Amino acid sequence: VVVQLTGNKRISERSLERLSLYRRALLLRTSGTGDSVYSHQIAAACGVSAAQVRRDLMAVGYSGTPTAGYDVARLLESLSAFLDTQDPTSVAIVGVGDLGRAVINFLAHRRPKLHLVAAFDADPDKTKRVVHGIRCHAMADLCDVITEHAVQVAILAVPAAAAQEVADQVVACGVKGILSFAPTFLRLPPGVVVERVDMTVALEKVAFLACKSVRAKRTHR
Amino acid sequence: VVVQLTGNKRISERSLERLSLYRRALLLRTSGTGDSVYSHQIAAACGVSAAQVRRDLMAVGYSGTPTAGYDVARLLESLSAFLDTQDPTSVAIVGVGDLGRAVINFLAHRRPKLHLVAAFDADPDKTKRVVHGIRCHAMADLCDVITEHAVQVAILAVPAAAAQEVADQVVACGVKGILSFAPTFLRLPPGVVVERVDMTVALEKVAFLACKSVRAKRTHR
Repeated sequence: VVVQLTGNKRISERSLERLSLYRRALLLRTSGTGDSVYSHQIAAACGVSAAQVRRDLMAVGYSGTPTAGYDVARLLESLSAFLDTQDPTSVAIVGVGDLGRAVINFLAHRRPKLHLVAAFDADPDKTKRVVHGIRCHAMADLCDVITEHAVQVAILAVPAAAAQEVADQVVACGVKGILSFAPTFLRLPPGVVVERVDMTVALEKVAFLACKSVRAKRTHR
Repeated sequence: VVVQLTGNKRISERSLERLSLYRRALLLRTSGTGDSVYSHQIAAACGVSAAQVRRDLMAVGYSGTPTAGYDVARLLESLSAFLDTQDPTSVAIVGVGDLGRAVINFLAHRRPKLHLVAAFDADPDKTKRVVHGIRCHAMADLCDVITEHAVQVAILAVPAAAAQEVADQVVACGVKGILSFAPTFLRLPPGVVVERVDMTVALEKVAFLACKSVRAKRTHR
């Protein structure tokens, strides 16, 4: 699937995912000033080929040299300029069960350009609480809080049966992107981006590949 | 990425994932005897095209007819015969924090052919407990329990810093497939299948598509 960018540029979704991986790998490196990195080192840290790394990095508009590699600081800058929005993106999460708490713990305060600003839950026992530094609001306040914080992306950590209704609500409040952990397909208006994280499909796939395929010829991701 | 099957057959990983989705959608249908379903109905429930559904279903060896569609019961049988192993696959999970508990709750007792048989945690306060019906063992008992239950697939819900060591341990005990939620690349011997569920990459992707792309021309999955 290809994503259309400004200036008539395009990038595949897989390439976009890999750029996120490269950045994380670079951020985890302990680096000094003037530190450099070669495509084969990024490749080894992310489980892809060096040629793939070089192809993907062409999209961000910073090229290394075959002898000196990439300057780490400049590469990180270019990756962030490409991946991040100028202003931070405000994110909210709906559902503060085990999964919601895990996601909040995972994502809160990790990326300077992704601000987790609010959580919501239907359970009155959970609202008015603060979970890993994020305030949990009642569903009745959904639109007010989303509008106040100009939330653009919502994470759904709700049961499958509630997912469509919650998705419709956040979209009606102006949310443009949804990351859903609910094991169900969401019907949404065109222009709203939905990405699903599907644990059961992932587990069935691993079980199939580990137990039923003759030879799982895959690149570890 | 193509997976090699017995009898010189092949299937793509994406097709495999979609077959899991189709089965889940069919299982959620309230159906009577002799109930039938058309490819366009499965397509609408899963957010793909009808032609894609028909192509994917060719792999499982049961074809419907243009006039009567697919018999639901026979299609489910064919899908399960294709996707499932003959004997149930034993699964264990390592890490019983918020995420581990969410995964256990998600997966326990959901699929007849995927048996979540044991959990493990490094925290002595968590071991000897039972979480959503699954007993939590100490890490010291990892190999004994994995061997006893013939565990083939392990789910890693541990911090990134611990993931490689835990992966090495479960592989040394005979595990052939790993589903990892840790945001890090795992180096494993050939023949071991690794699937990653990467929340931060998924969130960065949604934020990018919702806020930076001119036109996100994607099929909702």
